[in-house]
Amino acid sequence: MISLGCPDRTGIVATIAGFLAELGGWIVEASYHTDPDTNWFFTRQEVRVDSLELTADELRERFAPVAASLGERTEWRISDTGERQRVVILVSKAAHCLYDLLGRVAAGELDVEVCAVIGNHDGLAAVTQAHGIPFHHVRFPKAGTDETARLAAFDEIRKIVDSHDPHAVVLARFMQVLPMELCAAWAGRAINIHHSFLPSFVGARPYHQAHTRGVKLVGATCHYVTAELDAGPIIEQDVIRVDHTDSIDDMVRKGRDIEKVVLARGLRSHLEDRVLMHGNRTVVF
Amino acid sequence: MISLGCPDRTGIVATIAGFLAELGGWIVEASYHTDPDTNWFFTRQEVRVDSLELTADELRERFAPVAASLGERTEWRISDTGERQRVVILVSKAAHCLYDLLGRVAAGELDVEVCAVIGNHDGLAAVTQAHGIPFHHVRFPKAGTDETARLAAFDEIRKIVDSHDPHAVVLARFMQVLPMELCAAWAGRAINIHHSFLPSFVGARPYHQAHTRGVKLVGATCHYVTAELDAGPIIEQDVIRVDHTDSIDDMVRKGRDIEKVVLARGLRSHLEDRVLMHGNRTVVF
Amino acid sequence: MISLGCPDRTGIVATIAGFLAELGGWIVEASYHTDPDTNWFFTRQEVRVDSLELTADELRERFAPVAASLGERTEWRISDTGERQRVVILVSKAAHCLYDLLGRVAAGELDVEVCAVIGNHDGLAAVTQAHGIPFHHVRFPKAGTDETARLAAFDEIRKIVDSHDPHAVVLARFMQVLPMELCAAWAGRAINIHHSFLPSFVGARPYHQAHTRGVKLVGATCHYVTAELDAGPIIEQDVIRVDHTDSIDDMVRKGRDIEKVVLARGLRSHLEDRVLMHGNRTVVF
Amino acid sequence: MISLGCPDRTGIVATIAGFLAELGGWIVEASYHTDPDTNWFFTRQEVRVDSLELTADELRERFAPVAASLGERTEWRISDTGERQRVVILVSKAAHCLYDLLGRVAAGELDVEVCAVIGNHDGLAAVTQAHGIPFHHVRFPKAGTDETARLAAFDEIRKIVDSHDPHAVVLARFMQVLPMELCAAWAGRAINIHHSFLPSFVGARPYHQAHTRGVKLVGATCHYVTAELDAGPIIEQDVIRVDHTDSIDDMVRKGRDIEKVVLARGLRSHLEDRVLMHGNRTVVF
Repeated sequence: MISLGCPDRTGIVATIAGFLAELGGWIVEASYHTDPDTNWFFTRQEVRVDSLELTADELRERFAPVAASLGERTEWRISDTGERQRVVILVSKAAHCLYDLLGRVAAGELDVEVCAVIGNHDGLAAVTQAHGIPFHHVRFPKAGTDETARLAAFDEIRKIVDSHDPHAVVLARFMQVLPMELCAAWAGRAINIHHSFLPSFVGARPYHQAHTRGVKLVGATCHYVTAELDAGPIIEQDVIRVDHTDSIDDMVRKGRDIEKVVLARGLRSHLEDRVLMHGNRTVVF
Repeated sequence: MISLGCPDRTGIVATIAGFLAELGGWIVEASYHTDPDTNWFFTRQEVRVDSLELTADELRERFAPVAASLGERTEWRISDTGERQRVVILVSKAAHCLYDLLGRVAAGELDVEVCAVIGNHDGLAAVTQAHGIPFHHVRFPKAGTDETARLAAFDEIRKIVDSHDPHAVVLARFMQVLPMELCAAWAGRAINIHHSFLPSFVGARPYHQAHTRGVKLVGATCHYVTAELDAGPIIEQDVIRVDHTDSIDDMVRKGRDIEKVVLARGLRSHLEDRVLMHGNRTVVF
Repeated sequence: MISLGCPDRTGIVATIAGFLAELGGWIVEASYHTDPDTNWFFTRQEVRVDSLELTADELRERFAPVAASLGERTEWRISDTGERQRVVILVSKAAHCLYDLLGRVAAGELDVEVCAVIGNHDGLAAVTQAHGIPFHHVRFPKAGTDETARLAAFDEIRKIVDSHDPHAVVLARFMQVLPMELCAAWAGRAINIHHSFLPSFVGARPYHQAHTRGVKLVGATCHYVTAELDAGPIIEQDVIRVDHTDSIDDMVRKGRDIEKVVLARGLRSHLEDRVLMHGNRTVVF
Repeated sequence: MISLGCPDRTGIVATIAGFLAELGGWIVEASYHTDPDTNWFFTRQEVRVDSLELTADELRERFAPVAASLGERTEWRISDTGERQRVVILVSKAAHCLYDLLGRVAAGELDVEVCAVIGNHDGLAAVTQAHGIPFHHVRFPKAGTDETARLAAFDEIRKIVDSHDPHAVVLARFMQVLPMELCAAWAGRAINIHHSFLPSFVGARPYHQAHTRGVKLVGATCHYVTAELDAGPIIEQDVIRVDHTDSIDDMVRKGRDIEKVVLARGLRSHLEDRVLMHGNRTVVF
């Protein structure tokens, strides 16, 4: 699979398609998009693996000069869809997103290897282990009390995560804010689910905020983690209707169903290499 | 129709239902709600008009002591659904909400009298007059240039509006911010449609803000106008999906379809006396 | 909780509310509806348990003459929301609905006792037992080969189910058609999730049917099981958008997310005694 | 704009993209899809008009051999997006779709020429003429009484329609079934809005059918007209939630909002040449 972004001009499609045609590449799915504001061109080409007689590395080598010919600011990557992707999941107490992801993996819907689940509480250890996945409990100091201990806890998490070199680090209702260093280290791989329709209700207790404001829909947002809280590029969002009969608890319950599907959809798009970032926005092919 | 809010306690339903039963009132639709946070009770009772041998005023007189017995903070109103409701619409240049409302009235779906349309531009005069409705063009100074002239323009609007004593003043993409005096004078009757899913993207150019943030849904909010811009009690909201292929113009176009239905639904709820305000939130029966 | 249906006339609300007020009953949630076509009145009254000094049985005894006074066709039931409800789940091979329900129970969202899971395959035994719930594998003959063996298998299922006297028998993508006797025995308690937006695509392979027809949305329907296949009273439905890029497998995958929430919502409404049947339609308070 | 369908094989994208690149064609929007069931390839290429120094006819001439090289079953068309498209609208009594379409045209959202509106009743003459569009009243005999008169009425309609050679013939809640000859003559151009979520509730009074079945969502379907009633290729569908409080009239009212947007979206897709038919299914780019 080739994902590429470069300044728009005529002939890009012809160049890439010509390159693939020469190699006998059978394009299963091809997507193109031009952003008219920035005049930037995006494409994703999914090629049938048996139509190419090259390894991913050989393909990268052959494609490099083609990409270079499209301008020096061109960004591209080639991923091997044959490779099973590795995922590490960070959790806290809330169970629903973890149950949902593990259920999807167990049912064969999400074909990934969950290498580890890391929790700042141990309440989700049992369900994790029942799926045959190692659970790591990393203790955090009480919020705001001991910054050194907090950073130490994150160091521990980082070691576990990095030991698996995962394609995605999923913050499945992990309630700790990542330090800037980790945001940078995992840029483009750390995915968060926030329980509001961002940019509304950033930060803590978004359902309480939503209830206070009296909104008629609550939502969830799956986004890449960046240094600014809840402000990273959005991959997927959805909402569900609520009304005056819904207490905050009802909103939380209804919202959970949206959180689960929004996270699952966002993660799938990421793992299928369908998401191209462009500044703080995303193209999701 | 009786709408009532009062502190919750046992026996309120029995009291009201007993009152209506004694008069032979045939309840067509009855709604109840208790807000657990504030322990406030809300009800709306729609009674078949031919089952009562009273005028609305007589009913009010009879009901007053019943309401008083429910506590001194009780708020209630009785409206006569037989009376045709009057609406004044404020517009600027954007045509879609006005076309939509007038179409609904013409098609008999919205059974109201549109007494007048007032515009700070005259572009929508022709369509208004084609529906047999008077159009008033009230000129506004360029934004931020002449506060006196702006307030004078609003005085002119106020005179026209108040001469009709309307049940609803609809800001159908009227791009001027109401002065505080008008917000107060029309409290609970001035209804705005804002072209975002509030509280996101308050103020000007919300679709531009939405595009910049890269959201995956755009929305619209129908709310009562209060002194704080775009912060009044929300009556209705909805959203529509957008993606990276949608330019700002596409978002504007898709959003218009949501604005129209959200405004029409919100206005209908208001005119059917289904909306009870409670602080900055609404109960919509 | 009181649920009641009777022919409409004036004074019903007053009668019931008066009855509850006399007992000091604090109404937490009250819903009323009149069906104008059949002139039938429906109500559901949820009363705070600590406001009554009666057991459910005593309340039933006291209410019986009140109900009788509302006409001889009056149907009513009083359920004790303090009692934990029992559920038996029937499954086949598809895992997603079972994972979802068990996840909701484990996370405390659905406060029920899952007494047993019964499968005509044994693939879901492990996940069931991991939740500490007994799994029964009941073998079925190959479809259409041995009617006697099929009915014997259902007899076995019936014995297991009835031994728990469950409030709900959930067919969570159970692929066998219930015999008429079981439909009758479990009337109003057997709940099915059908993977289409009924009445479209009744019967087998609804996603294939949907793909062939080229629809732009796929859906799911939660309904009571009746003798006629996929034709029972509908409790809940929802849909999700698909397009030409979705293969049948994609539709199946997207549809699963809808099946799960529609089943969970429908089951919750049933267990909270919010569903009143009226012919082949439902009132869901 | 080039739309093309042909049997899939390697190199098609390269061929078409190469052709356009050679002409200096700047691709604004390119879409590709392969149907895995039929192994059929679809593409739509929107080229910036000022990047080509050819007329549409010259482009067609140049492209013909390219298309031929992709197999003899290849189907393609080139449309000139610079040309303003012509639309004829057929109506009966229901006003909402016509109001909606005319409002969109008047507001500049839908940039088409509405050449004529034809009604089997004359109730919508005034609003049509207020938009400066000719209205033709063609009388139909009472249903089922006089087949000859019915066909004569359709002959009259056909003459009016064909005199404008329209890009789309829109049946905007036109309640007459087109004769087979007209279905054939206008194949791929006659667009209907059906007021149900097809394939549910084909034919007359779908909201009544929906109410009887007790569905929890009602919908609308925009499709090409074919000889079999309400069975043509679907362009767009959507739904809206209803519940037991909605009478048939309420369903009709809520459904109208869906009909309007579904028709408007479907028509836009058709006019922008985004719809490629494939058997009874559509690819909507």
